[in-house]
Amino acid sequence: MLRGSRKLALVTSPLQRFHPFIPAGGVGSRLWPLSRADAPKFLLDLTGSGSSLLRATYDRLAGLSAGPVMVVTGRSHAGAVQEQLPELTGDDLVLEPSPKDSAAAIGLACTLIARRDPDAIIGSFAADHVVEPAETFQGVVREAVEAAATGRIVTIGITPSSPATGFGYIKAGESLGLERAPHALTVEQFVEKPDMETARQYVASGKYTWNAGMFVAPVGLMLHYLRHSEPELADGLDVIADAWDTDRRDAVVDEVWPTLTRTAIDYAVAEPAAAAGDVAMVPGDFTWEDVGDFAAINRLNQVDPGGDSDVAILGKNNRVLSDESSGIVVSDTGRLIALIGVQDIVVVDTPDALLVTTAEHAQRVKDAVNSLKKNGDTDVL
Amino acid sequence: MLRGSRKLALVTSPLQRFHPFIPAGGVGSRLWPLSRADAPKFLLDLTGSGSSLLRATYDRLAGLSAGPVMVVTGRSHAGAVQEQLPELTGDDLVLEPSPKDSAAAIGLACTLIARRDPDAIIGSFAADHVVEPAETFQGVVREAVEAAATGRIVTIGITPSSPATGFGYIKAGESLGLERAPHALTVEQFVEKPDMETARQYVASGKYTWNAGMFVAPVGLMLHYLRHSEPELADGLDVIADAWDTDRRDAVVDEVWPTLTRTAIDYAVAEPAAAAGDVAMVPGDFTWEDVGDFAAINRLNQVDPGGDSDVAILGKNNRVLSDESSGIVVSDTGRLIALIGVQDIVVVDTPDALLVTTAEHAQRVKDAVNSLKKNGDTDVL
Repeated sequence: MLRGSRKLALVTSPLQRFHPFIPAGGVGSRLWPLSRADAPKFLLDLTGSGSSLLRATYDRLAGLSAGPVMVVTGRSHAGAVQEQLPELTGDDLVLEPSPKDSAAAIGLACTLIARRDPDAIIGSFAADHVVEPAETFQGVVREAVEAAATGRIVTIGITPSSPATGFGYIKAGESLGLERAPHALTVEQFVEKPDMETARQYVASGKYTWNAGMFVAPVGLMLHYLRHSEPELADGLDVIADAWDTDRRDAVVDEVWPTLTRTAIDYAVAEPAAAAGDVAMVPGDFTWEDVGDFAAINRLNQVDPGGDSDVAILGKNNRVLSDESSGIVVSDTGRLIALIGVQDIVVVDTPDALLVTTAEHAQRVKDAVNSLKKNGDTDVL
Repeated sequence: MLRGSRKLALVTSPLQRFHPFIPAGGVGSRLWPLSRADAPKFLLDLTGSGSSLLRATYDRLAGLSAGPVMVVTGRSHAGAVQEQLPELTGDDLVLEPSPKDSAAAIGLACTLIARRDPDAIIGSFAADHVVEPAETFQGVVREAVEAAATGRIVTIGITPSSPATGFGYIKAGESLGLERAPHALTVEQFVEKPDMETARQYVASGKYTWNAGMFVAPVGLMLHYLRHSEPELADGLDVIADAWDTDRRDAVVDEVWPTLTRTAIDYAVAEPAAAAGDVAMVPGDFTWEDVGDFAAINRLNQVDPGGDSDVAILGKNNRVLSDESSGIVVSDTGRLIALIGVQDIVVVDTPDALLVTTAEHAQRVKDAVNSLKKNGDTDVL
């Protein structure tokens, strides 16, 4: 019996050791006034599905993992996150006192998970992306977990649907030849956001995928690179993890967190690991949208081409009148909204702030938010 | 002394007999959601001057007339009108139980004024037009009163600033050769709204002016034509006037008013009088705007060309942020409004309704209002 048990353990899928987590940070300034400091993008339902982006991300991952899904977010969002994810226990809700960029957030999740299970395979997935269908995504992640079990940091590269210039790209090499991860490839290089001509060449070559910032890796390998690149950050995270399950947790977090180095996980882990040949990639041929601005929301909420209006409505407001207009109205107020002769319009109607722009100008919303900050209009941010 | 008094009376200016009144009706549907059933156009300040259109009209006329200025409006507006015109006495606030078009409203004013002073020269001036400067207007009205004293219905024709197709035109003839009204001309014809080519010919000819619906006339001549065209209407108005200064006023008005013929003063008086050669015209070379739609409001509120924004703001809202945008924002809410990359935009922001359109589509607002009526959205009308 003992021998049998051991044998069973040996053939257990690496998915049994899979510990996914969700770094949930960032306001999403380009989605103001829908997104706010106290209503960041990941807490919003931007697809009209009835689920917030966070809830949908959690559900996609919960279907994959035997254990819990961890969420790392700001302390000020604890209540809202708990409300959206009532099944999340206190152990799996990791709260940052202040934003410290991705290396600290992901590093803390890795450090805590390593204490629970040193053989864990972690997976890091942003809270505010739209991914469809969930089944395709899950199949890709399963392959990524298998590939990670061979001792690699595995990114998921999104098959480009256009020569987008707003994302970094991943240049893939040869097949890894893994039986249980047949699509896994070596990664030659991460490349920065390209110009349009370069992006066209990337897409035409078939060797490049979008870097969506998702990765799956043995937790020890993550922490190895983190410690090598940012030893002080790694030490600080260890001090916090030592106090985590004690009554000193909050005091230690408050003391150490502000001292941590602010840097991105790409610089601290992904790029040095890629340079050392330790990064692989599984291509993900699913719909992926980072919902960066209202143009993206417009794309996600395309109206029925057979319908009698070209205006999509996001939110609870069902009193929108449109005449020779197209675009999107985002509104949870009960106000009657009339659009007449405006094309590709974006109207975001909230109780204390109103945005009127066009899909073409959606990227500039961030500049407006910066102007508001400078003007002291922080009550609406 | 008695003889002296008589002589003085004989040389008294006709202005001493001038009784101007203001028919204040019409919601102004093209200005929805700024104008509402309970906040019609004439009660609004559309120029940012601090005065409503009604108040400004009243002030222009009060400066001309020795006696009071009468206002004819709907009963439901009595409170708001009294608030804007605290000096208006109950005798000079004439209330209609329901809208009955211009012949009934103007006919009632004339009938009541004739009872006070059978030699009165009346003047009828719409409540919801913008006229500037007031001094030029007053000079033109003085000439019209002098011309009316010679026994004519005198219209004021607006010197066209463009070949507008939205107005009727007045075709003038020869000078009347009046010493005290040197610019007064005979009127050959009232013509309906022309097409663009015809309007161009009218303006090029120099013989046509816009019909702004303002006229000045001996009250007896007005009532003569009214009785001839619409004898039942004239009889009904006499019944009301008989009861006016008694405690039966409201009862009689409620009984008779609903039976009155609904027609326009143009058909009942102006056109038959013109056909009989009894109409004259004094050209008015002042700025006149009937503020028919938001495009007109946009023109009236042109921003300072040297300023750093191309967006005009009408209303108390001083929290408008514009980036590469032009047009007008009408708002009395305290909401922050951000416009990004929208040109010639019209945003009308009220607590329960929001309109987004462009100056080009301003005429279509009326269609939207009709749709709302059909849909049963009467709470915002």
